[in-house]
Amino acid sequence: MSETMTMKHLLSVEALTIDEIHALIRRAKEFKHGENVTLKRQVFASNLFFENSTRTHRSFEMAQKKLGMGVIQFEPSTSSVNKGETLYDTVLTMAAIGVEVMVIRHPQDEYYADLLHLPVSIINGGDGRGQHPTQCLLDLMTIHEEFGTFEGLKVAILGDIRYSRVARSNAMVLKRLGATVLFAGPEFWYDEAFDAFGTRVDVDEVIKEADVVMLLRVQHERHAGDESFSKESYHAQYGLTNKRWKTMKPGAILMHPAPVNRDVELADALVEAKNSRIVRQMENGVFIRMAVLEAILKGRGVL
Amino acid sequence: MSETMTMKHLLSVEALTIDEIHALIRRAKEFKHGENVTLKRQVFASNLFFENSTRTHRSFEMAQKKLGMGVIQFEPSTSSVNKGETLYDTVLTMAAIGVEVMVIRHPQDEYYADLLHLPVSIINGGDGRGQHPTQCLLDLMTIHEEFGTFEGLKVAILGDIRYSRVARSNAMVLKRLGATVLFAGPEFWYDEAFDAFGTRVDVDEVIKEADVVMLLRVQHERHAGDESFSKESYHAQYGLTNKRWKTMKPGAILMHPAPVNRDVELADALVEAKNSRIVRQMENGVFIRMAVLEAILKGRGVL
Amino acid sequence: MSETMTMKHLLSVEALTIDEIHALIRRAKEFKHGENVTLKRQVFASNLFFENSTRTHRSFEMAQKKLGMGVIQFEPSTSSVNKGETLYDTVLTMAAIGVEVMVIRHPQDEYYADLLHLPVSIINGGDGRGQHPTQCLLDLMTIHEEFGTFEGLKVAILGDIRYSRVARSNAMVLKRLGATVLFAGPEFWYDEAFDAFGTRVDVDEVIKEADVVMLLRVQHERHAGDESFSKESYHAQYGLTNKRWKTMKPGAILMHPAPVNRDVELADALVEAKNSRIVRQMENGVFIRMAVLEAILKGRGVL
Repeated sequence: MSETMTMKHLLSVEALTIDEIHALIRRAKEFKHGENVTLKRQVFASNLFFENSTRTHRSFEMAQKKLGMGVIQFEPSTSSVNKGETLYDTVLTMAAIGVEVMVIRHPQDEYYADLLHLPVSIINGGDGRGQHPTQCLLDLMTIHEEFGTFEGLKVAILGDIRYSRVARSNAMVLKRLGATVLFAGPEFWYDEAFDAFGTRVDVDEVIKEADVVMLLRVQHERHAGDESFSKESYHAQYGLTNKRWKTMKPGAILMHPAPVNRDVELADALVEAKNSRIVRQMENGVFIRMAVLEAILKGRGVL
Repeated sequence: MSETMTMKHLLSVEALTIDEIHALIRRAKEFKHGENVTLKRQVFASNLFFENSTRTHRSFEMAQKKLGMGVIQFEPSTSSVNKGETLYDTVLTMAAIGVEVMVIRHPQDEYYADLLHLPVSIINGGDGRGQHPTQCLLDLMTIHEEFGTFEGLKVAILGDIRYSRVARSNAMVLKRLGATVLFAGPEFWYDEAFDAFGTRVDVDEVIKEADVVMLLRVQHERHAGDESFSKESYHAQYGLTNKRWKTMKPGAILMHPAPVNRDVELADALVEAKNSRIVRQMENGVFIRMAVLEAILKGRGVL
Repeated sequence: MSETMTMKHLLSVEALTIDEIHALIRRAKEFKHGENVTLKRQVFASNLFFENSTRTHRSFEMAQKKLGMGVIQFEPSTSSVNKGETLYDTVLTMAAIGVEVMVIRHPQDEYYADLLHLPVSIINGGDGRGQHPTQCLLDLMTIHEEFGTFEGLKVAILGDIRYSRVARSNAMVLKRLGATVLFAGPEFWYDEAFDAFGTRVDVDEVIKEADVVMLLRVQHERHAGDESFSKESYHAQYGLTNKRWKTMKPGAILMHPAPVNRDVELADALVEAKNSRIVRQMENGVFIRMAVLEAILKGRGVL
């Protein structure tokens, strides 16, 4: 077993050092190869998802149960949130009844700002258009598993960059880790703030060059109305078509945080293509979350 | 402990041999008498119900927990299904995060057709108007528990035969097992395809003759509008009224898959009548599901 | 470990003797200080909440899991309740599949009346405008923890007295336990039936006098339309404003069953004031529920 770190909360990847990121990836790989831990006492987690989720929600539940934690279910639609209870009071309540670790996804950016003094560890499962740190970490783990390093890799991030809570975190941290980041996609979904982390290039060019083609989800639910093209035309202009896929470098991989819009971001058949790591990303998600939870449990004296 | 079988999926009762059916019933009875097993490692199930359910859903959850399996909750209404994710991609995701056994109920007939290559065992919890194999098996177990055999029994199936996912499976398998099957109920809810498995007879006659009176649920939610009678007139014409019930043979039992429409399929007081096995069916459901899960876990090398 | 009592159901606090109440509080304190029990066999609970809840629902789930019980999830909105299944048949079903303890919250007063012969223990988690016995017990525990006795205490109950399922139970039992009960709040939310348990007094006076200021929630969801004042004017007239709070006696505490309407029943900042026991009440809720569950498990021979 490699050395493990300790953590109080996980709110963003920016707060982690390069060494901490490497330590989490290393531990996640060990969990993937069957290692596990023994808790010193019962400890309970709860997953408070105020936005739809299958992968992140259930992946955390799996990680918690694999570590032997108790999981207290929480469902906003049947909770006191319907009586007007605020997020603060909901977290206060869950902490009072003995939940020590909460994974929270909430539509408000930095929803966690006023929660951090409560006697609970918070893992950000997605805040508005902000961060989604465990998605970022599982992407990093998947890249590292493939290439053994980040140094010198060309990583292309394609699509809905402006509104994605994956794009900015990934771009920032990949740059810190020594990769070259390239962006492509519709101009009105780009944001010049991203110039700090990488270069904007043509879709067809970048797919030929990249070691990692990272597709972002077109989030229909977040920008209904401001799309100027149909699914078909998005696919043709910016998607990973079969034709573009054939131009990828030998050894290059494709990634997507899922859920995938098949035949929009990528051609249907490519989801399970040989060089697709989409399923692998979901697998790795459980193990990176075990590593994050372990660091938090260590911080709470449970390990 | 009797010999146990192995299974990859359970999609329909038709796929089981007579010996396999008897083996499952035998094991279910052993579980009912307190036997249990020890899993070689942690193994996780998830129950994906895209249609309402209390009995089937919670009975599977109970069976899984009694066997020591972990259960990952899944709720379509708060999942990525709301972002347009397909059943295929949902199952792919749950498999990727480490769920090995999935019980699925879905409104589409044979929803499972394109899922069978995924690295997961699927138990059909009801597909459209198709099959509901564990309901069939628990009915068989309940009959066998009562009579010790199927040979020579007269089993009457009454009611909404055409639209039921219980009627066809039960009729087919009961015939294979040596029972005589009789049908009664409204003509427009009958289907001539059933002539292959039994005989259509008069309601009043069949209730006097049958060893097992198996009532089917009037599924208001599946055929709103095409009913040509009120609840009262259905009950009077085709229901098990108190009067008809008194004509049942000594030793004959009544069954219903539930939920019951009281005073429609049968008179309110008969649900818990001495010869009603409705509660027994629900009890047996847990044990037959344990037997099915055991066969699947054995197939996966967990037992 | 102190002596423990046994119980079949917990429907109301009125059914408990003074000794039983003290025994439950004593055991709850022992659980709070880390004591636990070992079950003789697997035993399953289910929490059937037909009204919104965070605290009560999840606090019971926590108590069950801390005691090592299995918890079968139940969600009315995806259950057969949607096919017209009654509460009776739902409970019958859950009992048949092996759930031995059910916590039920239901909008109908005394919903449990026809359920008591079923082979299951029922804990009332709130019936219509009736009772909410574990809320009452956790309030008593919190008072006892503070003062070591009920004798001679002045307890003020403020607010929506008529419609609260906390007010009547608390008033009756506090009187039995030797406390003096005082009521204040809007006249049209008062009910003369309460004259039997205490005295109606002026808000400003009672806050100065009371050892315990027990605020009741304004239940917007229960009496939309019949409110003759805004939130601001309720707060000004009957709420615990900062100004009134400053007039509380030294050593006096404030309580609220939560969820709190901040700046209505009490000023926002007072929720976590030094003399607020609102968080403590939620903490104690888990332990008092463990004590109640223990008494029921003892009654069922599981302990």
